[in-house]
Amino acid sequence: MKTESKTLKSLFKSYLTVKDSYKGGKGVIKKEGQKTYKLSSNENPLGTSSLAINAIKEATKDLHLYPDTTDFRLREALEVYYNRELTKDQFICAASGSEIIDLTIRAFVKEGDEVIVSTPCFVPYKMFSRWSGANVIDVPLLENNYSLNIEGILNVVTEKTRIVFLTSPNNPTGSYISKEIFESLMVQLPTNIVVVFDEVYWHFAEAEDYTTAQSYISRFVNLIAINSFSKTYGLASVRVGYAYMNEEVAAYLRQICKPFLITKLSLEGAIASLKDEVFIQKTVETIHSEKKFLKEEFNKLGIQFYPTQANFYLITPPIPSNEFVQFLAEEGIAVRPVDNFGATGKVRITIGIREANIALIKALNKLKLISLN
Amino acid sequence: MKTESKTLKSLFKSYLTVKDSYKGGKGVIKKEGQKTYKLSSNENPLGTSSLAINAIKEATKDLHLYPDTTDFRLREALEVYYNRELTKDQFICAASGSEIIDLTIRAFVKEGDEVIVSTPCFVPYKMFSRWSGANVIDVPLLENNYSLNIEGILNVVTEKTRIVFLTSPNNPTGSYISKEIFESLMVQLPTNIVVVFDEVYWHFAEAEDYTTAQSYISRFVNLIAINSFSKTYGLASVRVGYAYMNEEVAAYLRQICKPFLITKLSLEGAIASLKDEVFIQKTVETIHSEKKFLKEEFNKLGIQFYPTQANFYLITPPIPSNEFVQFLAEEGIAVRPVDNFGATGKVRITIGIREANIALIKALNKLKLISLN
Repeated sequence: MKTESKTLKSLFKSYLTVKDSYKGGKGVIKKEGQKTYKLSSNENPLGTSSLAINAIKEATKDLHLYPDTTDFRLREALEVYYNRELTKDQFICAASGSEIIDLTIRAFVKEGDEVIVSTPCFVPYKMFSRWSGANVIDVPLLENNYSLNIEGILNVVTEKTRIVFLTSPNNPTGSYISKEIFESLMVQLPTNIVVVFDEVYWHFAEAEDYTTAQSYISRFVNLIAINSFSKTYGLASVRVGYAYMNEEVAAYLRQICKPFLITKLSLEGAIASLKDEVFIQKTVETIHSEKKFLKEEFNKLGIQFYPTQANFYLITPPIPSNEFVQFLAEEGIAVRPVDNFGATGKVRITIGIREANIALIKALNKLKLISLN
Repeated sequence: MKTESKTLKSLFKSYLTVKDSYKGGKGVIKKEGQKTYKLSSNENPLGTSSLAINAIKEATKDLHLYPDTTDFRLREALEVYYNRELTKDQFICAASGSEIIDLTIRAFVKEGDEVIVSTPCFVPYKMFSRWSGANVIDVPLLENNYSLNIEGILNVVTEKTRIVFLTSPNNPTGSYISKEIFESLMVQLPTNIVVVFDEVYWHFAEAEDYTTAQSYISRFVNLIAINSFSKTYGLASVRVGYAYMNEEVAAYLRQICKPFLITKLSLEGAIASLKDEVFIQKTVETIHSEKKFLKEEFNKLGIQFYPTQANFYLITPPIPSNEFVQFLAEEGIAVRPVDNFGATGKVRITIGIREANIALIKALNKLKLISLN
């Protein structure tokens, strides 16, 4: 058996045996009677759209029947949501935004090809690219404010470059790509390089020169915008994401969408949530006001943080990040170290409801007092 | 814009632009007042385990929170289900059996490699293999009784062969691989070729010399058994499947499982369903008695059918298959033409509850009368 094992192992792809795992946000150390707050995974602090919950409950019948083989109804709902400025044929839906990132890589990347990322960034760009045997070229965000290094990106483009991953607002930094910067990159980049524009946090962006990819889709055939139902719609647990792009590219990607990719419950939840404008508005307003609250409190406490366009803050903790995360975990607050995103020593904190944020500030105050003594 | 489109299209992978789509079982032509029966997708005619439904309903809270990043709890439940004869580290869980087929192909197949299938067979083996740029070598099942052509398989093995797909009971033929045939193939096949043994219909097998892969796992490191919650457990709509194999191979495959692969509701449903022995027993008993009922009725009607170990029959319809399927659709009964599985002119009919089967027989009688006139 040993020999057999060795023989088979010789076929293991080397680029799949690199340990580069992505784990979700960690929990807290539970103490009796202590309230806990999860500020580690950028989830919606208001929960889920009630329209979505009702649709999901309603759909818990006939679970023995296969769901729709395609995302057709969800794409129709998206066409309506986008005021028919995009057509249903321009959308791809899948079991999360991550799934679409993976689909895109499989569709365009071969072993030995190159993809460009700008760290700190969402880990799956690198992880899934390596699964296709690609070489990941990192052009880090600029150090002072985490803005995109356009020149750096253009300098590393080769014949083998297949995809450039952009994220705006960016996870875990909260920084964004301005209209001007984005356009400048797009016009200079060869048009046979796919630009994946990950905008899953777009609802939370406030900057005047922020832009989603929507208005650029008809101009740039190589542009694919990724979105998710996990954050703003509060549907992280049921795994639905979508992308929009040029119609021909969508038709190509659709060929590697597995049949029955999305569960029936998830499809119903996503379709219903798109109609819940009140919930989305309330979510965005809450994040904006709590973002302001936290900013003021961070300033009072002398906590170093980066400006954010998302529903989280990246901070430089006042003590080593592992100790900081551990301290908050003991106080019942889960936050996220983001060394594996490429932000060494930094911590990402999801903006919560007021109660959670007050608990966070109280804990930070406690930490400050301890440190002073 | 035309030029840009062409440039990007030059990167489309040729093997992804082959139209080879897999569609689910078709519906019926709905007429007012007519009852309809779906016998086209091998779904559980008794519905879903009530334990699973309750667990899913119970779990429709906190949908805004990410599900478990791993399948750990489900693997623990599977270890118990398999009486600890397999350990949790030998299982891989994913969003359907198909997803695991895809994972396995990605883990072992490179562009230009070969995989072996035996048609008529489940379409995704071929479809997903082509997505990885593999050449699909078909060694058809033997014509008389759809049994496996071992010699044929061994004859086409080359240095490039990576996977052999076996299915028992087989979809869409209902045939199976006997213990003897299976062992004979396994001992003769080079041990660096992965054998995917798809046993998603195993609960329904009655033949004395039928075998699952379980007792062979410790002996054959290259053996991967695929299972599903879609059929017997009545959870087709929520997409959960699992595989068991050698621990080292499982650890390797686990590296390309995406984080949060399975939705929270699906995880809870699957874990609960494993405990519902009563439901499974009732399902299997229903299929067995209805299989007998249909066999007798088919014989009376002179319908040509193949012996089956699954929850469906493959038949040779008395009139051309497209007309046959259309006729039944108008009678409110959906059945499945399986030309794309490689069974040209044949039709697959799922075994339903008695009411559905009587409706089917009634319709077949009507067809016979029409044909005689």
